[in-house]
Amino acid sequence: MGHSIADIAKALGAEAAGDLSVVVTGAAEPASATADHLALAMDPKYADGIGKGSAVAALLWQGADWQALGLKAAIFAPRGRLAMAGLSRMLDAGPVIADGIHAMALVDPSAQIGEGAAIAPFVVIGAGVVIGPNARIASHVSIAEGARIGADALILQGARIGARVVIGDRFICQPGAVIGADGFSFVTPEKSGVEEIRETLGKRDGVTAQSWTRIHSLGAVSIGDDVEIGANACIDRGTIRDTAIGDGTKLDNLVHIGHNVQVGQDCLLCGQVGVAGSSRIGNRVVLAGQCGVNDNIFVGDDVIAGGATKIFTNAPAGRVLLGYPAVKMETHLEMQKALRRLPRWMKTASQGPDKT
Amino acid sequence: MGHSIADIAKALGAEAAGDLSVVVTGAAEPASATADHLALAMDPKYADGIGKGSAVAALLWQGADWQALGLKAAIFAPRGRLAMAGLSRMLDAGPVIADGIHAMALVDPSAQIGEGAAIAPFVVIGAGVVIGPNARIASHVSIAEGARIGADALILQGARIGARVVIGDRFICQPGAVIGADGFSFVTPEKSGVEEIRETLGKRDGVTAQSWTRIHSLGAVSIGDDVEIGANACIDRGTIRDTAIGDGTKLDNLVHIGHNVQVGQDCLLCGQVGVAGSSRIGNRVVLAGQCGVNDNIFVGDDVIAGGATKIFTNAPAGRVLLGYPAVKMETHLEMQKALRRLPRWMKTASQGPDKT
Amino acid sequence: MGHSIADIAKALGAEAAGDLSVVVTGAAEPASATADHLALAMDPKYADGIGKGSAVAALLWQGADWQALGLKAAIFAPRGRLAMAGLSRMLDAGPVIADGIHAMALVDPSAQIGEGAAIAPFVVIGAGVVIGPNARIASHVSIAEGARIGADALILQGARIGARVVIGDRFICQPGAVIGADGFSFVTPEKSGVEEIRETLGKRDGVTAQSWTRIHSLGAVSIGDDVEIGANACIDRGTIRDTAIGDGTKLDNLVHIGHNVQVGQDCLLCGQVGVAGSSRIGNRVVLAGQCGVNDNIFVGDDVIAGGATKIFTNAPAGRVLLGYPAVKMETHLEMQKALRRLPRWMKTASQGPDKT
Repeated sequence: MGHSIADIAKALGAEAAGDLSVVVTGAAEPASATADHLALAMDPKYADGIGKGSAVAALLWQGADWQALGLKAAIFAPRGRLAMAGLSRMLDAGPVIADGIHAMALVDPSAQIGEGAAIAPFVVIGAGVVIGPNARIASHVSIAEGARIGADALILQGARIGARVVIGDRFICQPGAVIGADGFSFVTPEKSGVEEIRETLGKRDGVTAQSWTRIHSLGAVSIGDDVEIGANACIDRGTIRDTAIGDGTKLDNLVHIGHNVQVGQDCLLCGQVGVAGSSRIGNRVVLAGQCGVNDNIFVGDDVIAGGATKIFTNAPAGRVLLGYPAVKMETHLEMQKALRRLPRWMKTASQGPDKT
Repeated sequence: MGHSIADIAKALGAEAAGDLSVVVTGAAEPASATADHLALAMDPKYADGIGKGSAVAALLWQGADWQALGLKAAIFAPRGRLAMAGLSRMLDAGPVIADGIHAMALVDPSAQIGEGAAIAPFVVIGAGVVIGPNARIASHVSIAEGARIGADALILQGARIGARVVIGDRFICQPGAVIGADGFSFVTPEKSGVEEIRETLGKRDGVTAQSWTRIHSLGAVSIGDDVEIGANACIDRGTIRDTAIGDGTKLDNLVHIGHNVQVGQDCLLCGQVGVAGSSRIGNRVVLAGQCGVNDNIFVGDDVIAGGATKIFTNAPAGRVLLGYPAVKMETHLEMQKALRRLPRWMKTASQGPDKT
Repeated sequence: MGHSIADIAKALGAEAAGDLSVVVTGAAEPASATADHLALAMDPKYADGIGKGSAVAALLWQGADWQALGLKAAIFAPRGRLAMAGLSRMLDAGPVIADGIHAMALVDPSAQIGEGAAIAPFVVIGAGVVIGPNARIASHVSIAEGARIGADALILQGARIGARVVIGDRFICQPGAVIGADGFSFVTPEKSGVEEIRETLGKRDGVTAQSWTRIHSLGAVSIGDDVEIGANACIDRGTIRDTAIGDGTKLDNLVHIGHNVQVGQDCLLCGQVGVAGSSRIGNRVVLAGQCGVNDNIFVGDDVIAGGATKIFTNAPAGRVLLGYPAVKMETHLEMQKALRRLPRWMKTASQGPDKT
């Protein structure tokens, strides 16, 4: 399926120049682009590549001299990655799922499936499920009893939606994600070692052998509009109230959200982030890959945490964090700089101040 | 399904007061409770909520003045979370899986399925599998040839039980868990860089380009009674002997257990914990979220490790650990406190002792 | 199925002694071996076990006095783990998957399946898929439209191969792995907090509330020959070009590979490793469990990183890394040693140099 330069520019709300009737069928890096591709060169450093490839049209940085680059047509992207968002949406055919409900899908008669659904083979949809219009559900997905999902959902292969989970509109779920497993919540008959240590910060009396009794999860999971969940990510049910994910929040692959956690709106939780039970994450929080958030704490609005930051205590709004344990980013950098100097410093200092 | 206050109190072994014939159908936080709910207020700080909600019965802290709270009936919980365990078990209807073997489940004729089984569609059960009575197996589960599972198992959507895996009674497996994948074990024809570094602690001779040869996993996985495995968690097979998980141990979501690992009884391994190959974990060990355990080491009984602790060397019984690398919790706190002071300390000290 | 000592020795290219016609059906640790087992004692420290078990044949260290150990036959392994690779391959029957395409597998008529395929029930293979000869595909696997897989593939339960993914020969995929989920790539209309912090290293102006717009993944994933992917591991599609994994590279369970990442040949990425978007990993790189690699950086050939190392910046070829943030292993050890001494050092030093 081809798109003219005129159509692409219009869709992106971008300016264009040259022969706007040129048609492209895909996008490519400049050096590997063919004549059917729109070359992507949103920064002058990619200009050289255009001559190496065969593209006749390109997405260029603002103010580029497209004619000098030998092109027939160009679109200008003042904010390149934003243009990529629009362009990639136009060019993404999306997964192939045949319209209608496949003969090998099992949909409970009491389920309500909206108009325009495409439901692939080996899907199981339980009693009382309600799914909005235009759902696309890939193979091997299960949606358990009583779950409710809004309009325009895209749920990919083998994702698991648990009983009574509620999800808003425009939901995207990558393969293998598990939404609504039981929370990890256990208690011992007598005080456990963990409870003792929380009180004493490390001191322990005699240890008693005890087994764990399970606290069942009676809550579900509530997810807002425009949420995306990554491959093999897990969101546990709440104990009494629902675990909740706010509108516009995106979770990457292998993210773990414990029971009762409340995540706000427009957050990004990158690959392998873990949030322990009952913690609250504000709005627009960004946690880079492998971050960890302790249980029962609060992470304020607009907090940003660098890769593998381990947040043990409440974090005020707007704070930029790094380290294990997490501290302000500039504090972390100072501490690490000092630590790097420390071995030599100790050697020098131990010779005595008189000898330096 | 409703329960009277009398029945709930009896099931919890707890004292009750007021009109014990009051019936509730669920539990809720006090402020959002309706008249059908048992309000959960096991601590005086939740007392205010009762007035805001509509509950007429509540689970209260020991000694609470239930009449002053405007209630008709109350149950008293000297240990609140333990009461929650009993209460939540009573109120949890559990997943809906129809009795019997679904027509779209494929059970090998040589498999032995105990009485009272509920096996959902798109389940595959291999040759020679033995499953005890009252198994509930949700959709899309696979149980490979020769696996043996005890009584009262609950195995949720898409879980994978590998060939010859042996599991005890009352097993709970959350969706997507993989038990019995092949171990990650590879060897090079000549000594590899990793082997060299283990001997030299970082020094290397010339690097030789080599490819990896696979060591197949001939062992399986052995799991005791009363074990629960989290969503998308992975337990690898052993090379010769089985990887083993002891009675009463619970694994959270996305936990990784390498080949040959031996985990003891009544352990808690929280979200995203990883245990590398051939390590041994004692009994009643608690590893908080994102902890890591090096390969071929031993973690003693009753060890407790805080969030994201990385254990590189053997840990004696009863030790409380924190940090990367793991040290005693109090040592970690001292070290971090000193490190926080270090940048300023260096600045002051470099001015010379005479000038301070 | 039994193997004679002569056959095993020949397959391993190893020397043998004694009655080479002795037949074994499996391998075991010396103390638990029966007469049907080959006892595994590749190190003198395992010699004692042989007397406790009932094996009559053993795999021994080079130069062992097999007759003094009471054996009838022995094979000598100058490099024990390498011998284990060969031996375990001989003894591994592999998963049971019936020959041919199961009646309950759905293979698109336009897909090309090579000779000798074994495809299990509830497998879905999409339009235009091409799979080489001798593929063994376990239950519940999905292979989406346009994917191409080489010869001798073994793809285990519930693995997900996305559209247009290209994979070489001898591919092994453990259960639940997701290859070809969409990349985690979002952009805000105006500059986001994360972009600002990358420029200012932690300083922020006023925060603007913005939602995230999705950048779709138009690329796929390209995987070389002899690659193995662990259980529940995830490899995301590229934005424009493919995410790539080189020949001979092995990924362990729960590994996360972000969009556009390029991993070289013969690498080992151990359990729960995460590599953020657009980074490049060289050849023969070994990342131990829970390592993290920042986005948009380069890790050189032959780099080895210890457990939970967090690599934030480019790493030169051959470097041995440890720590968060990653530094040279010997630097890390020095820093940690100094940090361990620091609390006491500060106490002593604060008493003044005159008093020491």
